[in-house]
Amino acid sequence: MTLGDPTGIGPEVVVRGLAHLHGPPPVVHGHREVLDRACALLGVDQPALELREPPSPASFPGPFEAPGQAQLAALDQAVGASLAGEVDALVTAPIQKATIRQAGFDFPGHTDYLAHRAGVGVTMMFASPRLKVSLVTIHLPLAQVAAAMTADRLTLALRQTAESLVRDFCVAAPRIAVAGLNPHAGEAGVLGHTEQRVMQPALAAALPDLRRALGEGVEVDGPLPADTIFRRAVAGEYDAVVAAYHDQALIPVKLLAFEQAVNLTLGLPFVRTSPAHGTAHDIAWTGRADGRSMIAAMELAVSLAQARRLS
Amino acid sequence: MTLGDPTGIGPEVVVRGLAHLHGPPPVVHGHREVLDRACALLGVDQPALELREPPSPASFPGPFEAPGQAQLAALDQAVGASLAGEVDALVTAPIQKATIRQAGFDFPGHTDYLAHRAGVGVTMMFASPRLKVSLVTIHLPLAQVAAAMTADRLTLALRQTAESLVRDFCVAAPRIAVAGLNPHAGEAGVLGHTEQRVMQPALAAALPDLRRALGEGVEVDGPLPADTIFRRAVAGEYDAVVAAYHDQALIPVKLLAFEQAVNLTLGLPFVRTSPAHGTAHDIAWTGRADGRSMIAAMELAVSLAQARRLS
Repeated sequence: MTLGDPTGIGPEVVVRGLAHLHGPPPVVHGHREVLDRACALLGVDQPALELREPPSPASFPGPFEAPGQAQLAALDQAVGASLAGEVDALVTAPIQKATIRQAGFDFPGHTDYLAHRAGVGVTMMFASPRLKVSLVTIHLPLAQVAAAMTADRLTLALRQTAESLVRDFCVAAPRIAVAGLNPHAGEAGVLGHTEQRVMQPALAAALPDLRRALGEGVEVDGPLPADTIFRRAVAGEYDAVVAAYHDQALIPVKLLAFEQAVNLTLGLPFVRTSPAHGTAHDIAWTGRADGRSMIAAMELAVSLAQARRLS
Repeated sequence: MTLGDPTGIGPEVVVRGLAHLHGPPPVVHGHREVLDRACALLGVDQPALELREPPSPASFPGPFEAPGQAQLAALDQAVGASLAGEVDALVTAPIQKATIRQAGFDFPGHTDYLAHRAGVGVTMMFASPRLKVSLVTIHLPLAQVAAAMTADRLTLALRQTAESLVRDFCVAAPRIAVAGLNPHAGEAGVLGHTEQRVMQPALAAALPDLRRALGEGVEVDGPLPADTIFRRAVAGEYDAVVAAYHDQALIPVKLLAFEQAVNLTLGLPFVRTSPAHGTAHDIAWTGRADGRSMIAAMELAVSLAQARRLS
């Protein structure tokens, strides 16, 4: 686990989560000063854990004085331990983009950084009990989304979603719905051609491979209109939705499952989860942070790590 | 009212709605054959109404044989009566785009056709008890949305939304949230510049005019991240959300309020509502159509027409 941005709610929700969790003591990457302050804030003893402080250069003034360097050093070390196989799963607390970028982190977020470090293509999924949604594109200006919807990206997101449903969530015969990029899924070309020219051929080409790899029960439906697909998924018609872009995925996830939603990175050689919220500076260090999304992220990480060990 | 596509669920939900509604008998534009068949389907006598059949050319084979011509002739006549001030409100049943286009209708939907006939700029709003959402752009391929987010369109949508909240929904001091076009509302330019370059200046320029016209209590907040704005609106923080594009608006509307959502056209010289659903050919003429959205559309039309007469 990481403590994330020392000036955000990450340290508080990590301690809340560890106080709640009944699992093996985790390895926590971060600064003792931050951990101690979060325990003091909540009035609890330090939970059972192995703390690994990142090495500090002589010029380092402290985690609260240089939060960008503190976040980056701890994350860098945690990812190294994960890639080295020292841990089964990585749970990250929120980073603050402004300060971590100043420290030299040049990525839109954790997910892109993890893909870069591992040298693999990954898929972002938001998982909650009622709804699982994967994204084909993540942090792009809206004007760049249509061009980014390529057969390769769609196929990767679809395959990693199907593999995760089978391997991580024990869905024997996954049913996956793919949301169209355009309104009404393009309405047969009247509202855009990406569905006909890119998405339909990519899905048709991917399905035989998926069935060979994961079983004949795999079902893929789409591209379907995005304005009704989430309703159908929540009603139980699908096990997951593959969404085209950020807001198409995050609007339903945050409406339906804000407190229980977990951000999951598919495709890495280890399990990686995080809460769906950010650093929430407006309530940082007030003791008022909601720990439910972090607890869900920890529980899912343990559950998925066990599932992968068994498989 | 119109009966819409004779081969869809429109006639059934109109008769369901009229059997339920306790209001003045409406003028219905459509063919007797269609109305009679819908009453027979539901086993009810014809509700109190004034039927106006559109004039049929000699070559017209009948509404079920030529549904495109039937829809278009009835809609054309109903819009004429609305523009002539013969009625206070127009409630439309769903049209089928494929057949009505063959009959010569060259618009993405009712809303664009009404704007053209009235010669005014309009705004599409979806209204439900929990959530009201207006759209800056409607039926565009996703790749064209960013360029269509102009100061003029945003200002029109904002103004018509504020006017409707005051005039139609009796909100004395409306609080309106405006959703960003890009993920995280552009994140200070990192994920797009439309918020900084177009939306923020347009909102700042529009607010003094709105307050002069509608009162100093008008509040406008945004552009805000779209993935949390609907949650905040549903929690009561805002009276309406102005969304940038189709799926950004319709995903939350259809998730939260599918059966109660009413499609409302703002900016016309008369009230216009319709249900939020389409022709639903898969269940047409089976007696299984859900009439709730049409009933809500009728009730809202009566309520808004009364509000406007009183104002």
